Amino acid sequence: MSICIRHVSLNDQITDVYIEGSRISRIGTNLPVQAELEIDGSRKALIPGFVNTHTHAAMTLFRGFGDDMKLMPWLEEKIWPNEAKLTEEDVYWGTKLACLEMIKSGTTTFVDMYMMFHASARAVEESGMRAMLAGACFDHFNPKLAAKCKEKNECLFSELSRYDERIMYAIGPHAIYTVSGELLQWMNRFAEEKDCMVHLHVAETEKEVQDSIARFGLSPVRYLHKLGVLSPRLIAAHVIYVDDEEIRMLADHGVNVVHNPASNMKLGSGIHFKYREMLEAGIRVGLGTDGASSSNNLDMVETMKLAALLNKGWRKDPEAIPATTVFRSATQIGAEIVRIDAGEVREGALADLCLVDLMQPAFVPNHNFISNLVYAANGSCIDTVICNGKVLMRDKKVPGETEILEKAAELAYKLVR
Amino acid sequence: MSICIRHVSLNDQITDVYIEGSRISRIGTNLPVQAELEIDGSRKALIPGFVNTHTHAAMTLFRGFGDDMKLMPWLEEKIWPNEAKLTEEDVYWGTKLACLEMIKSGTTTFVDMYMMFHASARAVEESGMRAMLAGACFDHFNPKLAAKCKEKNECLFSELSRYDERIMYAIGPHAIYTVSGELLQWMNRFAEEKDCMVHLHVAETEKEVQDSIARFGLSPVRYLHKLGVLSPRLIAAHVIYVDDEEIRMLADHGVNVVHNPASNMKLGSGIHFKYREMLEAGIRVGLGTDGASSSNNLDMVETMKLAALLNKGWRKDPEAIPATTVFRSATQIGAEIVRIDAGEVREGALADLCLVDLMQPAFVPNHNFISNLVYAANGSCIDTVICNGKVLMRDKKVPGETEILEKAAELAYKLVR
Repeated sequence: MSICIRHVSLNDQITDVYIEGSRISRIGTNLPVQAELEIDGSRKALIPGFVNTHTHAAMTLFRGFGDDMKLMPWLEEKIWPNEAKLTEEDVYWGTKLACLEMIKSGTTTFVDMYMMFHASARAVEESGMRAMLAGACFDHFNPKLAAKCKEKNECLFSELSRYDERIMYAIGPHAIYTVSGELLQWMNRFAEEKDCMVHLHVAETEKEVQDSIARFGLSPVRYLHKLGVLSPRLIAAHVIYVDDEEIRMLADHGVNVVHNPASNMKLGSGIHFKYREMLEAGIRVGLGTDGASSSNNLDMVETMKLAALLNKGWRKDPEAIPATTVFRSATQIGAEIVRIDAGEVREGALADLCLVDLMQPAFVPNHNFISNLVYAANGSCIDTVICNGKVLMRDKKVPGETEILEKAAELAYKLVR
Repeated sequence: MSICIRHVSLNDQITDVYIEGSRISRIGTNLPVQAELEIDGSRKALIPGFVNTHTHAAMTLFRGFGDDMKLMPWLEEKIWPNEAKLTEEDVYWGTKLACLEMIKSGTTTFVDMYMMFHASARAVEESGMRAMLAGACFDHFNPKLAAKCKEKNECLFSELSRYDERIMYAIGPHAIYTVSGELLQWMNRFAEEKDCMVHLHVAETEKEVQDSIARFGLSPVRYLHKLGVLSPRLIAAHVIYVDDEEIRMLADHGVNVVHNPASNMKLGSGIHFKYREMLEAGIRVGLGTDGASSSNNLDMVETMKLAALLNKGWRKDPEAIPATTVFRSATQIGAEIVRIDAGEVREGALADLCLVDLMQPAFVPNHNFISNLVYAANGSCIDTVICNGKVLMRDKKVPGETEILEKAAELAYKLVR
């Protein structure tokens, strides 16, 4: 398959972009190529697809179910009893809905942590997106459960070859308060052996820090450091409560950090994410939406705005985190975190791309495209999405979307009835 | 003109809504009426149009022009030199663009402060929206300029009859650091005589508070109290820096307050808006976007989310400000602030209404419509807008939108070239 996008705005220049197979083959004006699919890019801008580096996709089924509640009553009364009832079909359709929502708002790759790996993998594979999927692991400090987790991951990993290479594997220890140090160390070795990533919640709430100090005598990052599991394979989500020394530890070990501003604000987890200090220390900071039950959407354009505004806000400094920084986090850095050759529009890179519709008020006037994208637009500005060289959305329409909306709604209502 | 919206979701019930002239005439199932226009409301929800209670509409021309800058260099290098060049035509098209953007995101009424009243009024009148327009006044403590401001407002007010009643008048002293106490008092009397509102920036930044104490020996709200200008006619925008006693003063005098979360975060003005304390004191708290050069859009759906999230965030309390509260601020309270019989879907009220498109991921599943609207959606969910009984948008299309986008862009580029 070959695609040529004609007369599109790329870094404020009008150009053509030619895609062959899964990769961008050529970029230039009036390319003398004949593509199987020609796309008119006029009045549109070309950007890399977003990489949502922390979410729980199938939780779309719980969107708006128990908002404005304290964390523990929400989990205990609303989420956990209903998650216990989830079937493979629920997770499959919940993930289909999440993929639809992400495609519609320009995300081409996401990093997930949930249950029923195969249901999620099937949904992602059908959607045409990329995803790094981790089954959430909990041993609750019980060696029998730890043994089960190990077996489960060995088994899942061995089955990975069923899927397209768009499906990537991560191991998913939930958090230091639900996973033993022994299992965390095993998972770190597993990741090294299998060459996969580790996806973990870290230092999300004050309570986690207090409990960690009470239980392990160390704050979360120091505890992970002591366990020897800080590494470039670690994707650490949230990481709100860290001091300068811990930032240094994360940087020294090449740990990847994911900022989830909507979730952190909405759940009252904390707003003082040290974005600037982490970037200055050389940490790769990606952006995530978290699950739709906590944030409550999967819109990376909105996430970029929230990340920039929140950081300017708590610092009282309008220069704190500029639009270009959050855009880089949401694209190039995200791609680095999941280790794909994407996140930039460049010859040779994977063709994971979006066309932005410029004929709407958010882009008028267009004094500064990235500023408009981050501060004025939202996910609805995305017109066309291409992933791995295949068109997933055109003219804001995804094939089969009505069926997905209807089926996911039906299952969600059945679930929580 | 009569309109009947059939089979629409209103407060989770399916019903018909019949509009005659400018008002909602009947609400009920299967209404036996024959309307000139029948609208199919199935798979849509009906809400009141939003009231954006603080903006500077024509500043859309400066969208994205000088972001990520400190306030003073931004004003001195980017905004003021270019505002000095603005023509009537610029303000007219900038306001047209603002109206288009607001209609597309479900706003039917806004409270404005800018210059060249007639250019704005003409644009609003053509758009079909309602607006309370204030010409920004500055005397810079110079009695000659104060005399000019008075004359100008007397003159503008006398010309108001040119316009449809959708155009409302407010007097617009800019701030206590640009307008003398004498002029503020005159404006307060003017508003009382003419029965109009006063639109003022109050306690927006720490610097304003420090300067107020240095110059007047009092914090901004105490100074306004001493001047005797706190009244139910006052619309005070921002009001970030107030203590409990000042909140009491505002409440006792029936002052209206407008929260602008996007602007307050992006400009680094301050994030600790005392939303809950103000509501508990009985203050009417509306929501505003501020101008598109600072926030950078006019989307009230996004503004609701930011207001709720920011308050939960800085308090570390997910229960702090629920979705229903920000929705009420953006509709019913907004309508009370501008003193129109709207902001609710009720028989007899003005027909200022929006249809929300429920066939999109943000509303699937629809466990809780208001939660989905506030936390998951954005302004692009608005499908149809009716103001004063007239249809301004259908199927997400506003007549003439391409011309407005093109003309506004052309003028903006000419302006800052």
